[in-house]
Amino acid sequence: MRHDTLRLGAFFYATGHHVAGWRHPSSEADGGLVLERYVGWAQKAEAALFDLVFLEDGSGIRDGNLRSSERTARSTHFEPVTLLSALAAVTSRIGLVATTSTSFNEPYNVARRFASLDHLSGGRAGWNLVTSTTDAEAANFGADRIAQHGDRYERAEEFVDVVLGLWNTWDDGAVIIDKESGQFSKPDGFHPLNHRGTHFEVRGPLNISRTPQGQPVLVQAGASGPGKDLAARTAEIVFTANQTLDEATEFYGDLKGRMGRFGRDRDDLKVMPGLFPVVGRSEAEARAKFEALQDLIDPVVGLALLERMVGSFDLSGYDPDGPVPELPEANGAKSRQQLMFDLARREGLTLRQLYLRIAGARGHSQIIGTPAQIVDEMEERFQKHGADGFNIMPATLPGGLDDFIELVLPELRRRGLVRTEYEGRTLRGHLGTRPPAAHAPRQG
Amino acid sequence: MRHDTLRLGAFFYATGHHVAGWRHPSSEADGGLVLERYVGWAQKAEAALFDLVFLEDGSGIRDGNLRSSERTARSTHFEPVTLLSALAAVTSRIGLVATTSTSFNEPYNVARRFASLDHLSGGRAGWNLVTSTTDAEAANFGADRIAQHGDRYERAEEFVDVVLGLWNTWDDGAVIIDKESGQFSKPDGFHPLNHRGTHFEVRGPLNISRTPQGQPVLVQAGASGPGKDLAARTAEIVFTANQTLDEATEFYGDLKGRMGRFGRDRDDLKVMPGLFPVVGRSEAEARAKFEALQDLIDPVVGLALLERMVGSFDLSGYDPDGPVPELPEANGAKSRQQLMFDLARREGLTLRQLYLRIAGARGHSQIIGTPAQIVDEMEERFQKHGADGFNIMPATLPGGLDDFIELVLPELRRRGLVRTEYEGRTLRGHLGTRPPAAHAPRQG
Repeated sequence: MRHDTLRLGAFFYATGHHVAGWRHPSSEADGGLVLERYVGWAQKAEAALFDLVFLEDGSGIRDGNLRSSERTARSTHFEPVTLLSALAAVTSRIGLVATTSTSFNEPYNVARRFASLDHLSGGRAGWNLVTSTTDAEAANFGADRIAQHGDRYERAEEFVDVVLGLWNTWDDGAVIIDKESGQFSKPDGFHPLNHRGTHFEVRGPLNISRTPQGQPVLVQAGASGPGKDLAARTAEIVFTANQTLDEATEFYGDLKGRMGRFGRDRDDLKVMPGLFPVVGRSEAEARAKFEALQDLIDPVVGLALLERMVGSFDLSGYDPDGPVPELPEANGAKSRQQLMFDLARREGLTLRQLYLRIAGARGHSQIIGTPAQIVDEMEERFQKHGADGFNIMPATLPGGLDDFIELVLPELRRRGLVRTEYEGRTLRGHLGTRPPAAHAPRQG
Repeated sequence: MRHDTLRLGAFFYATGHHVAGWRHPSSEADGGLVLERYVGWAQKAEAALFDLVFLEDGSGIRDGNLRSSERTARSTHFEPVTLLSALAAVTSRIGLVATTSTSFNEPYNVARRFASLDHLSGGRAGWNLVTSTTDAEAANFGADRIAQHGDRYERAEEFVDVVLGLWNTWDDGAVIIDKESGQFSKPDGFHPLNHRGTHFEVRGPLNISRTPQGQPVLVQAGASGPGKDLAARTAEIVFTANQTLDEATEFYGDLKGRMGRFGRDRDDLKVMPGLFPVVGRSEAEARAKFEALQDLIDPVVGLALLERMVGSFDLSGYDPDGPVPELPEANGAKSRQQLMFDLARREGLTLRQLYLRIAGARGHSQIIGTPAQIVDEMEERFQKHGADGFNIMPATLPGGLDDFIELVLPELRRRGLVRTEYEGRTLRGHLGTRPPAAHAPRQG
């Protein structure tokens, strides 16, 4: 029996995680362009004592399929660090986690922006570090193709070292503002970094002093070996996608097992997989809600979802109600998604049946049911060490968020699984973690 | 007699433009790190119907003199785009202008962030485009030295073309959010950019739709020939430093005269020089306020100010009350600041006397006097076509801003020189300008 409580993130993808969520009559589908919508959602999540708001990001329209992009709500959206800066001014307790890629940014700029967000919010900033994965993004930055996985992670490892180093170029308490003596900061209170590495040379110091959290919280989502090592060394939150309990406990154990090599305690990293809940007062009601969304999926959008799963195989000429076609031979090992595609073909599914399977949770854990059924699964995954919490992905906004708050949270509270008040004022305070050392060795 | 009104910017440098402003007993010297301070100042400026808040920026601590940096309020401050995003949530009418350098950023990222700020603020964003000028900043981005002036402007010219192009990759009204048909944006409502230039290759489209202003307002501050050409082609505001009326009218005429070559109308660019006012109910009161600030200047800080004027000549061993030393021979033509240094030496000034001359306005127009005296100078410069408005640089914050609002604004209003209510809701609406064409030729 665990004595801590579940951590909860409000994961806002476009205006609802379900690919057709924006089409629901209740959805605030202009949320990607109207600040007031996000203010409303974030304030609801804060009133419900969520640990954090989580915004994913890409450096371009990742879907190469133009017809599909015109029919989804994700082609246009706020840049997440600016959006969270705005939310910082109208919230006071909830953590603010934004995604920024290491692939097409400079570490000095990223360190500054998240330090600024941490000051603006009084210690509530988190940086979800990703490497960009699509050629569509690379093409916005002078490259034809995205870098190889290993190269991306090599750059990311050095990038995060520079950022952590810059966040520590100012000592704690260095800013004294002594009007009488004229000493604004302590003598020798900030220092150069003098980083000279393979990808970066950065002198420092940062032109913003040490932040309320000391350093903003690092979040990571990589599931590969290098991704897990980077997370074990530097992250305090890991966002991940696990379908089954077995997958979840294996991932959890593997990740936490790597932390000791970097001198870190298992409790200083919270594993928070995505969770896509569709809740009803009865199972039938939940099922009906889900099916109503499924019915709204445009075949153009559904087929484009499948295309992205398997790379760039063009399905636009195929009949949605025809069989899943055979994929051409892959160059290397097939991804889990490609194997799933093959399996569906052998099971005799149609393309429509296949895209309906993935259109809701998009690879994350999907639970459709009553509050008790949803909380049962959450509790089991938590108690069996498959998760320390969840990033809740509302199918629609605000409806899916309202449903979770009004129906699921009371059950979580009844079982003592969530907090009843904020314990502190910073994101790290909510998590109860300790930050990684700024100069931890890469190989533990 | 001009029939338009003066445009006013609230230029917030650190916690007061005067180098010792932070030491004044009334100053909110923690403003660089506490959002509430900026919220207060921006809301005051909005209540006073200013056109905009203007934030300058640098990509590092530009002062190489560590002892001086510890004794000024500018070594640590919010990153301006995040700060203005926060202010967007708690203001509704005032324009929000942030500085971002073209030297150490990617145009796709800059276009996104300012488009995001424009959406967040409902059409109030402006980008002050600068090229970075110090080696201290270059060292944070892998370079030993800053690029040559010509190279910096060549990159800036292409950079701004890409940004303007990206802002126009979505058509006006492309986002239709038709839940019934499933069409989120119009068919063919957004397009790639396919820019292939010397410095950048950017495919586009932007992953944020056309903004409330169509494109955010461009601001420029370059005073060189290439700088003025870039401004004449693309800017709707030029921020500049002119000391005398003659200098101002010459600059104004030169700049506006260049616009025709780019197919633009003179009224579509507003020249807004910096203005450092110290106001009192009597001239003696104003003078006393100013002297009180001058007395707070630390000699270490004063000498460092002089060092930056002339490059990197080390003055730390010199007696502040000794004569201004002779500078070593310059490689090329001496800057205006170096010539001013030579002049002071020939006039027999001490180093202290010299730094006291520049410590307030730092190169901008300085007026110390009664409201009538200050407004006389503003009006003359406006009527004689030396300025379309001013960026007001309060010596201290909030005191200097309060003084301007309480003492100078009523006199400006009495003479009909400023607006009595906001005419619109966007920055461009306040300015009354028309945007430059996205694809105007570089050579008119």
